[in-house]
Amino acid sequence: VDQLQASQLVNAFNARYARCIDQDQLEAWPEFFVEDCLYSISSRENVKARYEAGIIYCDSKGMLADRVSALREANVYEPQHYLHLVGCCIVDVCDDARIVSETPFTVYRTMAATGESCVFATGWYSDEFRVAGSELRLHRRVVVCDSGLVDTMLAIPL
Amino acid sequence: VDQLQASQLVNAFNARYARCIDQDQLEAWPEFFVEDCLYSISSRENVKARYEAGIIYCDSKGMLADRVSALREANVYEPQHYLHLVGCCIVDVCDDARIVSETPFTVYRTMAATGESCVFATGWYSDEFRVAGSELRLHRRVVVCDSGLVDTMLAIPL
Amino acid sequence: VDQLQASQLVNAFNARYARCIDQDQLEAWPEFFVEDCLYSISSRENVKARYEAGIIYCDSKGMLADRVSALREANVYEPQHYLHLVGCCIVDVCDDARIVSETPFTVYRTMAATGESCVFATGWYSDEFRVAGSELRLHRRVVVCDSGLVDTMLAIPL
Repeated sequence: VDQLQASQLVNAFNARYARCIDQDQLEAWPEFFVEDCLYSISSRENVKARYEAGIIYCDSKGMLADRVSALREANVYEPQHYLHLVGCCIVDVCDDARIVSETPFTVYRTMAATGESCVFATGWYSDEFRVAGSELRLHRRVVVCDSGLVDTMLAIPL
Repeated sequence: VDQLQASQLVNAFNARYARCIDQDQLEAWPEFFVEDCLYSISSRENVKARYEAGIIYCDSKGMLADRVSALREANVYEPQHYLHLVGCCIVDVCDDARIVSETPFTVYRTMAATGESCVFATGWYSDEFRVAGSELRLHRRVVVCDSGLVDTMLAIPL
Repeated sequence: VDQLQASQLVNAFNARYARCIDQDQLEAWPEFFVEDCLYSISSRENVKARYEAGIIYCDSKGMLADRVSALREANVYEPQHYLHLVGCCIVDVCDDARIVSETPFTVYRTMAATGESCVFATGWYSDEFRVAGSELRLHRRVVVCDSGLVDTMLAIPL
């Protein structure tokens, strides 16, 4: 794939990824990843300091599924809705097998009880995709949040 | 049109739709719809409960024009600016005659008096477009807001 | 370039422009402009009243570099991160030599000390690009903010 095609594929992928989470279809969320994947949530400070651990760290698709199960079972948090707004990606590397890209995002949270919306998280996806034809799966998604605060109240995937 | 073309057409359409509203050219807003259209604003809760009424419900282009006239005549609200930020669409169905898609959006409001900006509304457009060549018009746009609160202070179209 | 190609080029340009600022590579920021450029930050009210001065006004690439140097030397402000989210552009004019377009944007600010994020600025880029092959540079970027408040606390480029 060339850079323009790669960019179109990544933008379309991100739109579906965000809808999956925002419309509460979390059981389908691990399907956006390959089996042997890395998904982590970190902050600018952690990334700068080269702390690998991050806020959340999953290194297989099974761990993503476990995380969804845990969220469903716990399910104690106050009813709330999320909305991702994902910017246009920047493709840094692409060939027929993989795409490396970065994409800014913002997530808004609306509390069902009060109806108030606020900015919940802002940051970047730092991604590596596996490409098969025109289908993409995430081999690595590091979610770099602008704030380290996000950990204390993190419920849904970003 | 194929899915990629459809996606490009919808993204371009949404950018112009948002500019029309944000730059206060409301008289041109009904032109984004076909005569026999449906435009409604609802909330996640209402959609889930299958309440059709919603916050606003217009089922013809004439009703959209009436709504703009009413806004212009009333015009009592405090001076304020809106900005839509519209995400990348997801095309679920497309052929040469119609496109069915969903698109996330956020609207910010800035009060002229204080200069302060806040998140005014977040949600999804659930759309059906009529296609003629490369021109789109909305046959149906259901604006699904994350919050039911939006009704009490709704002034401009979303 | 046709309108679709122009749109793709501008969206890709804006993604890189925003990343350059958000990832604090300000020294590279003037390279997005031609030598003989205009960069200004203004507000809706100022633009409507045809005040040219605006909040910031730079009419050469050298002035942009000077501005970055000044920011680096001053560097007294509280540690903070910015994130641009840039919408899809609207191409109003395009040929092989130039593109005239408008693009909505939002900038979020996160304070390092507290980790809190807020909407820092919302508005439009009103742009004229010079085109050379598939490479774009800004001949003119007028940043039209929804709020006039932005001037009192403006630190980074928008």
